[in-house]
Amino acid sequence: MVVEILAVGTELLLGNIANTNAQYLSQKCATLGLSVYHHTVVGDNEKRMTDAIKRAMKRSDIIILTGGLGPTEDDITKEVCSKVMGFELVEDAHTKKRIAEHFKASGRKNVTENNWKQAVVPQGAKVLDNHNGTAPGLILEAEGKTAILLPGPPNELKPLFAEQVAPYLRSIQPETICSQIVKVCGIGESRAETMVLDMIDAQTNPTIATYAKTGEVHLRVTAKAENEEQAKKLLKPVVKELKKRFDINVYTTNEDENLEDVVVKLMKKHGLTVTTAESMTGGMLAGKIINVAGASECFKEGFITYSNKAKKKTLDVSKATLKKYGAVSEQTAKEMAKGGVFATDSDICVAVTGFAGPENTAEEPKGLVYISCYIKDKVFVKEFHFTGNRMKIREQAVVQALDLLRRCIIENYKSEK
Amino acid sequence: MVVEILAVGTELLLGNIANTNAQYLSQKCATLGLSVYHHTVVGDNEKRMTDAIKRAMKRSDIIILTGGLGPTEDDITKEVCSKVMGFELVEDAHTKKRIAEHFKASGRKNVTENNWKQAVVPQGAKVLDNHNGTAPGLILEAEGKTAILLPGPPNELKPLFAEQVAPYLRSIQPETICSQIVKVCGIGESRAETMVLDMIDAQTNPTIATYAKTGEVHLRVTAKAENEEQAKKLLKPVVKELKKRFDINVYTTNEDENLEDVVVKLMKKHGLTVTTAESMTGGMLAGKIINVAGASECFKEGFITYSNKAKKKTLDVSKATLKKYGAVSEQTAKEMAKGGVFATDSDICVAVTGFAGPENTAEEPKGLVYISCYIKDKVFVKEFHFTGNRMKIREQAVVQALDLLRRCIIENYKSEK
Repeated sequence: MVVEILAVGTELLLGNIANTNAQYLSQKCATLGLSVYHHTVVGDNEKRMTDAIKRAMKRSDIIILTGGLGPTEDDITKEVCSKVMGFELVEDAHTKKRIAEHFKASGRKNVTENNWKQAVVPQGAKVLDNHNGTAPGLILEAEGKTAILLPGPPNELKPLFAEQVAPYLRSIQPETICSQIVKVCGIGESRAETMVLDMIDAQTNPTIATYAKTGEVHLRVTAKAENEEQAKKLLKPVVKELKKRFDINVYTTNEDENLEDVVVKLMKKHGLTVTTAESMTGGMLAGKIINVAGASECFKEGFITYSNKAKKKTLDVSKATLKKYGAVSEQTAKEMAKGGVFATDSDICVAVTGFAGPENTAEEPKGLVYISCYIKDKVFVKEFHFTGNRMKIREQAVVQALDLLRRCIIENYKSEK
Repeated sequence: MVVEILAVGTELLLGNIANTNAQYLSQKCATLGLSVYHHTVVGDNEKRMTDAIKRAMKRSDIIILTGGLGPTEDDITKEVCSKVMGFELVEDAHTKKRIAEHFKASGRKNVTENNWKQAVVPQGAKVLDNHNGTAPGLILEAEGKTAILLPGPPNELKPLFAEQVAPYLRSIQPETICSQIVKVCGIGESRAETMVLDMIDAQTNPTIATYAKTGEVHLRVTAKAENEEQAKKLLKPVVKELKKRFDINVYTTNEDENLEDVVVKLMKKHGLTVTTAESMTGGMLAGKIINVAGASECFKEGFITYSNKAKKKTLDVSKATLKKYGAVSEQTAKEMAKGGVFATDSDICVAVTGFAGPENTAEEPKGLVYISCYIKDKVFVKEFHFTGNRMKIREQAVVQALDLLRRCIIENYKSEK
């Protein structure tokens, strides 16, 4: 089945925001085995919206509309779509009650008359309760075509889609689609592709697709079958083979888990604490770790030692090392990591030092980064050559620092599994 | 004049990336006074691309196409657009030479035959040299319509647009458009709007538009006139009035400058050094400051004191304070900032402590944050109540910490202007 995504909103046409809803919905449709051939954006304009809906109805089976469901006069998505598809608008008692409750819960007193506009729905449409706002989602079916109307704010659209639209789409799909992610770190995209080229070339069902992320590669395996059980059965050997090929480079096969989640989970499992000693990443590494809820169990303290003086004073990096090898060197990275453990009495310290640019000289080659990890009285260090601008280089360094931490814990706590 | 943005790329339809090019181009068009009524995305498919181009030609004056200019067989944007508009494709010696030079400079040896496809251009088109890649930009004019073809990678598209497309669009515009940004921090969007409501209500030319950013509000003033001088003359009194109304809350009127740039500039101007003492932001504040090139002059060292133990040991926060008021309190924030200055001998320290969630209890109200700044032997502290998820709360805290630092420097170094 073919899906078309039609976003409504002047803020998109003015460039105030990017169309991240289209990205989210496209990803989800791909996972569900639905094809998306068009994204369209129009403003809150009846003529242009009508044309766009009619055109989408001709060339696609399902049209997902986002935005324009608000209470103001400008918001006309529901009205226009109902008109095009021949639906009458009627007040929905259930939705009206929900809106009243929503206002009561949020302590709003001055509910103006136009707020009740959101309780009006196309007669015969499926109404999807919105738990994060007042505009319900709507599903309209007519003449073999389906229109799905969703509110524009991503924090309303995403849960509505995940909880109510995805199951609906699955139910009208003749086949069941299941997919499984395999997240890999420490291997570049082209090398990852080469490693599975034979599998990709031979694939029919399941299929494998690779996605490059900053410092990571995600492989998505998707299978179609008559039912979920059969689809999952098709996935299993392929995922197993990928895990075998990528081995320790696979950090998770869980859709919702990212690298820092895995690292914090590993530390908690082994009861470890970590500290960070950052130069060029300047706190970004610690910032990532601390964004994991509950990180306080394993992260107590970190240091940003941007100057040589701070490296010496706080991390006890020796003057001789800095003089002989420089601040960006294997030796300095090692001493920073060791110093971090001794300064905090934590189990592990990860240290990062490098040149992020913008300058790029023979003495300070932009993108040269050393990352070290002190663990169980041993210190590991890796040299990297990143490309891109200052921010991009620092982001890649953070990913690789998290990954080094992950590998060091796995390697050094193998026996304690 | 009406512009339509047509992005080509399967990676957009699969949701691998968001259409940030459309956002960038829309913003730029708005600044140039051009109206954008449609965004469209199609894949590398001849039929759908042809339809999209023909439709855009009917309803718009200018169509900007992005993506699909690469060297592979899949890349067909140039071919399809030339066909629709009746252009012959011919090899361009100048572009061929540039591509050869590009490969030589990047040390690539195996230049395959298909790379020369990028040297083929529509006969009679304007060729825009791409300094960051091998696909040139192209401008095709026929029957009163213009197609502008740009490469998909943002790091190629943006400089091409800024340096060559924007001047072209200005040259074909009957009017000159000038705009000026006024960036405000420390005032919410609705309050900011209220403060200029009379100006917005009375506006015809120039116009004022407000844009909400995390912790900030940007006001864009746009004027149309016969020439640049007259447009700028129209802008001047409006910008002056905005600066007067928002006073110290305006941190810059420079398009390319963000809050951390301003803060680093201020510190450099007064020869100041700063340290950071972060709890819930966990290094994100330092990370922002260090992302400014040349920040090493004023930032030497920072601390992430996530645990109470670290706050005591590293920042000398007293046990009594932590016990009596808790880690998230005005008192602790103040002692953290003072401790940061004494630990590093810097001129200033900014400290952040708060509850980022996900828990939200009476004892630990999510979003309660204290930010303090120790400067010239005085300590300032502010209380905030942020909403949103864990990441959003931490991002807002970083913006407000930078803003407090900015205000404290301005207030305390007034006489040294």
